[in-house]
Amino acid sequence: MRIATVSVDGEKRIAAVENERYIDLNTACRLLLESQGKAHAEKLANTYCPTNMVEFLRGGEESMALAKESVAYVGSSDFSADVNKKLYYEGADVKLEAPVQNPGKIVCVGLNYREHILEMGREIPKIPVIFAKFSNTLVAPGDPILKPKLSDNLDHEAEFAFVIGKKGRHISEDEAMDYVAGYTIANDVSVRDFQRRTNEWLQGKTFDATLPMGPHLVTKESLPEPDQCEVVLTLNGVERQRSNTKNLVFTVPFLVSFLSGIMTLEPGDVVLTGTPGGVGQARNPQSWMKHGDTVRVEIEGLGVLENPVVNE
Amino acid sequence: MRIATVSVDGEKRIAAVENERYIDLNTACRLLLESQGKAHAEKLANTYCPTNMVEFLRGGEESMALAKESVAYVGSSDFSADVNKKLYYEGADVKLEAPVQNPGKIVCVGLNYREHILEMGREIPKIPVIFAKFSNTLVAPGDPILKPKLSDNLDHEAEFAFVIGKKGRHISEDEAMDYVAGYTIANDVSVRDFQRRTNEWLQGKTFDATLPMGPHLVTKESLPEPDQCEVVLTLNGVERQRSNTKNLVFTVPFLVSFLSGIMTLEPGDVVLTGTPGGVGQARNPQSWMKHGDTVRVEIEGLGVLENPVVNE
Repeated sequence: MRIATVSVDGEKRIAAVENERYIDLNTACRLLLESQGKAHAEKLANTYCPTNMVEFLRGGEESMALAKESVAYVGSSDFSADVNKKLYYEGADVKLEAPVQNPGKIVCVGLNYREHILEMGREIPKIPVIFAKFSNTLVAPGDPILKPKLSDNLDHEAEFAFVIGKKGRHISEDEAMDYVAGYTIANDVSVRDFQRRTNEWLQGKTFDATLPMGPHLVTKESLPEPDQCEVVLTLNGVERQRSNTKNLVFTVPFLVSFLSGIMTLEPGDVVLTGTPGGVGQARNPQSWMKHGDTVRVEIEGLGVLENPVVNE
Repeated sequence: MRIATVSVDGEKRIAAVENERYIDLNTACRLLLESQGKAHAEKLANTYCPTNMVEFLRGGEESMALAKESVAYVGSSDFSADVNKKLYYEGADVKLEAPVQNPGKIVCVGLNYREHILEMGREIPKIPVIFAKFSNTLVAPGDPILKPKLSDNLDHEAEFAFVIGKKGRHISEDEAMDYVAGYTIANDVSVRDFQRRTNEWLQGKTFDATLPMGPHLVTKESLPEPDQCEVVLTLNGVERQRSNTKNLVFTVPFLVSFLSGIMTLEPGDVVLTGTPGGVGQARNPQSWMKHGDTVRVEIEGLGVLENPVVNE
């Protein structure tokens, strides 16, 4: 299943994405429960399939299974035009949003692509470097990345991201996938002069509107080989970054286990797994994103995330 | 005004602290509005003086003024025993919580005490180092700091913290204090081996239960000289850190302005302003906090924040 967060008439909802159409999960769940003669269908639907992704993920496997059953049910049933209006949305009627709104944590992993580390002449690290972005950075698919007033050194970082689906601490690598809900694309847009002017990267990583995310959350069973995905970033149509998640030094299960040794992971937490070579800072000459640019990240199985760059 | 977050019968509420007694702000506000004959006193009280600190701070100066008026009103009135039960709490009947629950951002400032920087032979920095902690770190006053299973290098950092009260971006130093709600004490407990083993500090800074905060939010007008506060930390009764906020290189107004150049500040965001010399890592020999220890931070005008250390 692919799950999107969309704005419909100004209200945020989550929806399954099928054949370029959006199926409202809360409505679908209510219709299924009503068909089963449940007394509190609406309240139960609001509980198991709420309209917010983090709340939905908190429902765990039970909510996920019910969501899938609901989508299957509505696909095999006919409803009135009035019902359909709250059940199906066409692309033109909705605005796509970042799939996870207000994640409790956004954890980013530094240097993680094997071939890029080797080409830079560095040793393969034994321990991941991690850093944070705050939620003020989130940008919806298609919405503008803001080039800050205070800097011109705006750079892109195509990243394969995963989203936690179950609370846990001290998770073994063997059990790690039980704690992953699914995957999405992220662009860890970075303000390099701010990132480098002190030892800690945070100030260059957490400018407003520097984390495009989406287009959807792809649930884990819909991407059975997360370690075989081609990652490509183009800037104004010109390829700048290309690699494959098979080159990740620290895999998704490793990172779940590693991070959970430090902190309790919670449903909705987002982890960015690092970026391949080809960022603007590493180019000769260095080159930065500017007002009017379009940056596009495509990851095999996850779709395309494209954003314009606009002056703040 | 001093405002605490307290648990009463398992429910979190915010309360003004006066003479070691807690005055429930939501109840006080409802009583004031009822006395004024307002039709929707309860709904208005829930809107202006909700039970959650971040929600309350979002109400801005209007909510703050109404809260003060409410406390003054109930202080000059008599109510039945039933009403008093939901209005006044004695210390023994409540559990104190971290004043801000789930802040949107926890921003920490590195090296910031002038005399400590000079004694270390370093230059006074021109730009603050900033880094993050996530909300999983929060610990209530009196609750245990968890010594991680994975490390013994647990260290303390006494810090003067401020809390944002108004949304803003690109705030000048002159206007900065309009955006500050008040102050509290924090202990930026750090896991030094994890902090130092990569370039980025985050992994040593965001272990579960490593950010005691409290005891209260002291509103800014109740601490007119935030740059004249003695800061003292003792471990098992022995003094380890002592300085004064007059030694801060980067002041509260500077930090508000600096941070708002990077990110939109929001009500409830917490900023830790850095720690004086005397941390365990800088001692000869180095010494760490362990199970059974008690760490106590006192800051002039803000009170005392004391926590035991317990093995995870």
